[in-house]
Amino acid sequence: MYRTFVLTLKNTNRFNMYRSHNCGELRVSDIGNKVTIAGWIQKGRDLGGLTFADVRDRYGVTQLVFNMDENAELCTQARKLGREFVIQATGIVRERSSKNANRATGDIEIEVTELNILNESKVPPFTIEDETDGGDDLRMKYRYLDIRRAPVQNNIIFRSKLAIETRKYLDSQGFIEVETPFLIKSTPEGARDFVVPSRLNQGQFYALPQSPQTFKQILMVAGIDKYFQIVKCFRDEDLRADRQPEFTQIDCEMSFVHIEDILNTFEGLARHLFLHTLGLELGDFPRMSYDDAMRIYGSDKPDLRFGMQFVEMNEFVKGKGFSIFDAAELVVGICAKGIAEKYSNKDMKDLTEWLQRPQIGAKGLVYIKYQEDGSIKSTVGKFYTDEELKLWAEKFGAEKGDVIFVLSGEAEKTRKQLNELRLELGKRLELIKPGDFKPLWVLDFPLLEWDEESNRFHAMHHPFTSPKKADIPRMLNGDHETMKSLKADAYDLVINGAEIGGGSIRIHDRALQSKNFDLLGFSKEEAEAQFGFLLGAFEYGAPPHGGLAFGFDRLCAVMNGQSSIRDFIAFPKNNQGRDMMIDAPSSIHDSQLKELCLDIKTQKM
Amino acid sequence: MYRTFVLTLKNTNRFNMYRSHNCGELRVSDIGNKVTIAGWIQKGRDLGGLTFADVRDRYGVTQLVFNMDENAELCTQARKLGREFVIQATGIVRERSSKNANRATGDIEIEVTELNILNESKVPPFTIEDETDGGDDLRMKYRYLDIRRAPVQNNIIFRSKLAIETRKYLDSQGFIEVETPFLIKSTPEGARDFVVPSRLNQGQFYALPQSPQTFKQILMVAGIDKYFQIVKCFRDEDLRADRQPEFTQIDCEMSFVHIEDILNTFEGLARHLFLHTLGLELGDFPRMSYDDAMRIYGSDKPDLRFGMQFVEMNEFVKGKGFSIFDAAELVVGICAKGIAEKYSNKDMKDLTEWLQRPQIGAKGLVYIKYQEDGSIKSTVGKFYTDEELKLWAEKFGAEKGDVIFVLSGEAEKTRKQLNELRLELGKRLELIKPGDFKPLWVLDFPLLEWDEESNRFHAMHHPFTSPKKADIPRMLNGDHETMKSLKADAYDLVINGAEIGGGSIRIHDRALQSKNFDLLGFSKEEAEAQFGFLLGAFEYGAPPHGGLAFGFDRLCAVMNGQSSIRDFIAFPKNNQGRDMMIDAPSSIHDSQLKELCLDIKTQKM
Repeated sequence: MYRTFVLTLKNTNRFNMYRSHNCGELRVSDIGNKVTIAGWIQKGRDLGGLTFADVRDRYGVTQLVFNMDENAELCTQARKLGREFVIQATGIVRERSSKNANRATGDIEIEVTELNILNESKVPPFTIEDETDGGDDLRMKYRYLDIRRAPVQNNIIFRSKLAIETRKYLDSQGFIEVETPFLIKSTPEGARDFVVPSRLNQGQFYALPQSPQTFKQILMVAGIDKYFQIVKCFRDEDLRADRQPEFTQIDCEMSFVHIEDILNTFEGLARHLFLHTLGLELGDFPRMSYDDAMRIYGSDKPDLRFGMQFVEMNEFVKGKGFSIFDAAELVVGICAKGIAEKYSNKDMKDLTEWLQRPQIGAKGLVYIKYQEDGSIKSTVGKFYTDEELKLWAEKFGAEKGDVIFVLSGEAEKTRKQLNELRLELGKRLELIKPGDFKPLWVLDFPLLEWDEESNRFHAMHHPFTSPKKADIPRMLNGDHETMKSLKADAYDLVINGAEIGGGSIRIHDRALQSKNFDLLGFSKEEAEAQFGFLLGAFEYGAPPHGGLAFGFDRLCAVMNGQSSIRDFIAFPKNNQGRDMMIDAPSSIHDSQLKELCLDIKTQKM
Repeated sequence: MYRTFVLTLKNTNRFNMYRSHNCGELRVSDIGNKVTIAGWIQKGRDLGGLTFADVRDRYGVTQLVFNMDENAELCTQARKLGREFVIQATGIVRERSSKNANRATGDIEIEVTELNILNESKVPPFTIEDETDGGDDLRMKYRYLDIRRAPVQNNIIFRSKLAIETRKYLDSQGFIEVETPFLIKSTPEGARDFVVPSRLNQGQFYALPQSPQTFKQILMVAGIDKYFQIVKCFRDEDLRADRQPEFTQIDCEMSFVHIEDILNTFEGLARHLFLHTLGLELGDFPRMSYDDAMRIYGSDKPDLRFGMQFVEMNEFVKGKGFSIFDAAELVVGICAKGIAEKYSNKDMKDLTEWLQRPQIGAKGLVYIKYQEDGSIKSTVGKFYTDEELKLWAEKFGAEKGDVIFVLSGEAEKTRKQLNELRLELGKRLELIKPGDFKPLWVLDFPLLEWDEESNRFHAMHHPFTSPKKADIPRMLNGDHETMKSLKADAYDLVINGAEIGGGSIRIHDRALQSKNFDLLGFSKEEAEAQFGFLLGAFEYGAPPHGGLAFGFDRLCAVMNGQSSIRDFIAFPKNNQGRDMMIDAPSSIHDSQLKELCLDIKTQKM
């Protein structure tokens, strides 16, 4: 037999061949040692007889120094190093004369005795710095250079750490990670599926999962008891600014639970993640009904980092001769503290114009300034006495110096507009403390939404969501109008006004599930063809169960105070669903189409 | 605002609403306590005035007892419980009169005071026991019942644990898990891709990744330094017995490493996994060249759990008048210890016929029995003297009682046949100790394989594999014949004769990669269209790098001494690529095809 020898594992991340140390770990205690590092040239500087070069890797930056007097050949070689060249350098660690306190390795440098160029680099199309001059398209095409930049690399490392901590917590709670299949069946009732033609079953298609919903329910029927998965999901949507055709979920399901068990478990997950990645102890997780959230914030995902709750004004503004308020279904306002003096007429005009843009669509803005001197200045002085306006101020708890903003019109629309105004004022008035995190559970969502256009009900959450127990008899026996008032055992976790995730207690009874499919407009045949396996499973001892999914990309972004998920995805797609780096999608060979028995129709639809 | 109250997390897996305990945790120390459990009825027994029911969940089985004298109504209800009914039972833990030592909860039972049927069950189509009467098709269709069976559930739990330990180890070694995209570009040179039509880019297709190979290399160029991912991969192959269209890999890549660093790291991973899931300390990880593996075992994945190394016999069997050996390119044999008396003529005939089956295709089997009395009995006594045959025995290290089996013919074919014979004898002679694990690194694979049929080279590993450093000049300048002798820096980890995974040092130089594409028959345009992004990346400071992938499904099976990966996949597909439970693939709506601009060709190809 060939050489057979025992390897002993060196359980260390130090590899003694290409490098003895990475670029982030040398310290004063290493002074005098001979070391080898490898990495990318960040930049070089020639200062008289000395040449300096910063070498970068994932772990940090270390300064190399070359001395023209002592080794002219090496120093000359060093002067030819370009940015992003990959090098290996061996030398002696020595103390720096001018230290760099901003860098972990800033007390030392390496006096190089051997230099080895491992690979050269063309001049990068944008600078590899924290702030880069590269536009989005360029950064995406050269994503491998973009990821070398510390902010992007840190995002990717954060994501990895977040996944590890997610698994650590869920494992500690007895959850089992089960991989569900990617090649499943198309159920086109929700968003559009991506489909995958089958070669072995010609004319038939798999679909990529929009979520593992039915599989995780099947796992509950199978007795897995607590399931989770960090899993890619797919939706073929027209891409809006911050949507991706493939995205990642923390997907969970539990058996023999009530809603409280689930909220406790996932409040625990959120606390664990914030503590173990950001070192932050989250505060309370208050709860609010969907109806209250809509009434008080005009949104099912209120940002609780600042106040300005809605105050409904119908009862004290109507019948005073102001026809706009009189005609409105809802008159509702918010109070901004201490801006009466600061906010000029021009500011008010700006704000009104901002509200009147088509994206928001408000007709106009009424405001009441409760001035520091106690006087009232308002746009509706003609219709209301100062006394009446002071009553308004009282209802809002407004003090001298505050401004009340009022919108009116159709209730749902007006609430949405006021929500936009509230969020905008939160930004303009800098009411949000950086690093503040305010979680919130929103509960008691409606089960069904009536869609006027298609003249049918849609599931507010999804078709597997259970109505609240008390509503089940009404659901089984109620009339059409009753259905509109059913509440679901559904919940969303909101942090800082972003929906982190949501879930529900599921239906585990065949008759109730069939009833729900009926209400949602499925024929018996459609329900059976698409979800027959689940209905069947419910007949063989399905336990009560429920679960939840967090949007993993969104969670990464929110935890880092960022609004775009794209920066937390190593290889995102652009708004046309294209991967700019690999240039996908692309055409395929005719032979591939032929094997799949497919033709591409060239005419426009 | 609605009720706002602080939740305190109970960091426990005990949910006090549906159950106070699971079915696996009650012990003698709980006697006298009031408890609630929930689960599935495994079976019931009526014994006079008592009714017993076993309740099962993921954690175990607990016995319930109902007393007709004390609560006739409850007992009558209990007698109606069917198998697989889902129930919730509250009662007092008491000591059992006849204990069950085979069950963790066997010392206690629950005397039930409240019984709640949470869901009923039809009679299952097969028994939910360790050994079931369900055939494969039935088990797959009702996979949710199959997974309730302990052996299947244990496999799934093992898989989850193996993934957790994999991540724990790789995280401790500084690896970052990065999610690479699933919607990528078709590169049809390898196995067939599954493709995904793009609606937003009509006539164009994504492909599902066969592996994240190019992305992980890009991540090295991006400075991620150490990457891993436990990731689904896809191959549209004609499915053989134990292949799945979607399968899972532990995928890894490292920068600034030589082969030794990678072998150390992943020997470390294997040791960690065996220790922390099976409690086993693995022995040595010997190494063998590909050439030696083929010469000594006729296989690139030798099973080292038993001996019987090949002995080549050309030099001492030729020229003695036995025309079959004289004409053979290779005469080669193995020695089976101590079976000369045991193995009858009929056994030899059976073995010969087994070898002559078309799957193996040997012409015949020569054997030499070195009998206990020192005499020799052989099928080639006509051509060789006893003295000559004793010399053979000596070459094999054979002792009295051993049998030498000899095959001959074209070298490669003969080695394969003898490999089959060796493995078969290993089984028949029960040479494999249960629970024994023998790892092996196979090294120094050829870089290229010449394919006579297509008249071109194939990459033995894949097109990104680096030749050994010493072979690079020969690769850049050599002639056609030289190319056949190039060795790659590639390696496979074999355990018990199963290939667990493999990898290589990669090319990180654009010119060398282009040369390799040339050799593999890519035109410049094809190489650029498919892999231009990678070639481009190599021009911007690509570090030396290498990596490896383990087949996760296979690893699960091998670690459990099982041969089928299907039993370690929650929802596997059958040999036609169908999911029998959800009945996928299936036809899709015409509207979906229309949106994708696709037609299905109905004629046969």
